Amino acid sequence: MKAERPNTCALQHAISALRNNEDFRVWSVLVSIFGDLAGNPGDQISGAALSRLTENMGIKPEATRVALHRLRKDGWIVSEKSGRTSKYQLSPVGYAESQRVRARIYAKHTSAPTQWHLLIDQPVPQSQRLGIDAAKTSEGYLVVSPGVYLGHATPCPTESFLRFDGKPAHVPDWLRAAIAPPELTASYASLEASLRSVLTILASAPVMQPLDIATLRSLVVHNWRRILLRHIDLPAQFYTKTWRGNVCRGLVSDLLDQLPKPDILTL
Amino acid sequence: MKAERPNTCALQHAISALRNNEDFRVWSVLVSIFGDLAGNPGDQISGAALSRLTENMGIKPEATRVALHRLRKDGWIVSEKSGRTSKYQLSPVGYAESQRVRARIYAKHTSAPTQWHLLIDQPVPQSQRLGIDAAKTSEGYLVVSPGVYLGHATPCPTESFLRFDGKPAHVPDWLRAAIAPPELTASYASLEASLRSVLTILASAPVMQPLDIATLRSLVVHNWRRILLRHIDLPAQFYTKTWRGNVCRGLVSDLLDQLPKPDILTL
Repeated sequence: MKAERPNTCALQHAISALRNNEDFRVWSVLVSIFGDLAGNPGDQISGAALSRLTENMGIKPEATRVALHRLRKDGWIVSEKSGRTSKYQLSPVGYAESQRVRARIYAKHTSAPTQWHLLIDQPVPQSQRLGIDAAKTSEGYLVVSPGVYLGHATPCPTESFLRFDGKPAHVPDWLRAAIAPPELTASYASLEASLRSVLTILASAPVMQPLDIATLRSLVVHNWRRILLRHIDLPAQFYTKTWRGNVCRGLVSDLLDQLPKPDILTL
Repeated sequence: MKAERPNTCALQHAISALRNNEDFRVWSVLVSIFGDLAGNPGDQISGAALSRLTENMGIKPEATRVALHRLRKDGWIVSEKSGRTSKYQLSPVGYAESQRVRARIYAKHTSAPTQWHLLIDQPVPQSQRLGIDAAKTSEGYLVVSPGVYLGHATPCPTESFLRFDGKPAHVPDWLRAAIAPPELTASYASLEASLRSVLTILASAPVMQPLDIATLRSLVVHNWRRILLRHIDLPAQFYTKTWRGNVCRGLVSDLLDQLPKPDILTL
């Protein structure tokens, strides 16, 4: 049994600041927990530690069980029973997917790639266009306008597109507005407020237990990841003045420094 | 009075090979004559020399008079009367316009610029799009797809476009086909055949008079200009295998070398 925790009030305030944001689907929170706390090959979390973490966040045990079942069924995690305890870890697929976004989530500064390319598709009927636009978005491209895709990753083989390598020289207002739609801009503004609240709370909070540190870390990563992965990283010239994405990255980085990842065996 | 010309037969064959091509609007032929033979500031052609040139091409005197009138009215040329003779020269506007395309017409090799840019417009209704596409075409851009413009000139101030500087890395077949529509490809193929005929005729023709040289030169330039200025110059990777534009440039260059520009005072 763990000792009674002395900082319940500060912790509860910090948790509720972080739960205010965005969707809070339990399976998605678990994805964040596994990615952050058990993201190395071979890392296992016991069912008991997972329960303590999710209960700390205010998630009901039944909801955690359902979400674990779903993630196992989807092939994101695998479980192992030994006696009465279960141990969970990322599957190879879950590990690969977490790994794919890790650098972007934890980078202290937004990477500003210098190598860019545009892909231009031939005119196609609107019904086909929507599908192709969606496919390119999921490959990490920015849809500049229908059939025009900006990317900085190594391009996939793209026989059917005009590929043009170079760099943006002028970004017009209409594109800035399209890149930062009101919902996304508002999500970042709201995240910034939450992260600042947590920083203020932590400044005067007593030393925390590993479980509470792990709880807050996971929630910070979860909130950040849910917004960050909705868009690609672009150089500063692509953003409006009201865009708080880079400010949030700085705050996330500060918080994760103050909440160093505990050993999962101590949870 | 000029001496009887000994090479009438070869000349007539060459002229008719060149008259087979494209439109033969007299005012447009005169634009070619002025641009080629009297393209330097201060160059004047007498009305008599112009008549001899156009009659040599098979144009009726009345048609020449109407075309000269039109070009004067349009501000392309100015005329000066001294006694019973008229002298014509390019107006400042006509000179500037001729000058603007001179380098492209006479270049021995297609220039392959290394600096390119794409302009991407925001989505607009189709009715507006056609107008903007046409405006960008007249500024020397290639319309890659509606709202996407490729250019190598220094871009105009383009606040409302995304500008992307760089170079084409892959050109898809659909764009090659759009750049070389069947009519344009056929025009070049037909021009190539004419130019090759003229080269064959010249190879065995006797030495020519300045007037005949000037006549053939103007017709070569006219045919070439009428096709060349319908499109912008693009690197080789943008063209289909059936595109004969660059071959035609080589033949034009050979012909103009064999038909050196005579002094306009000798015509």
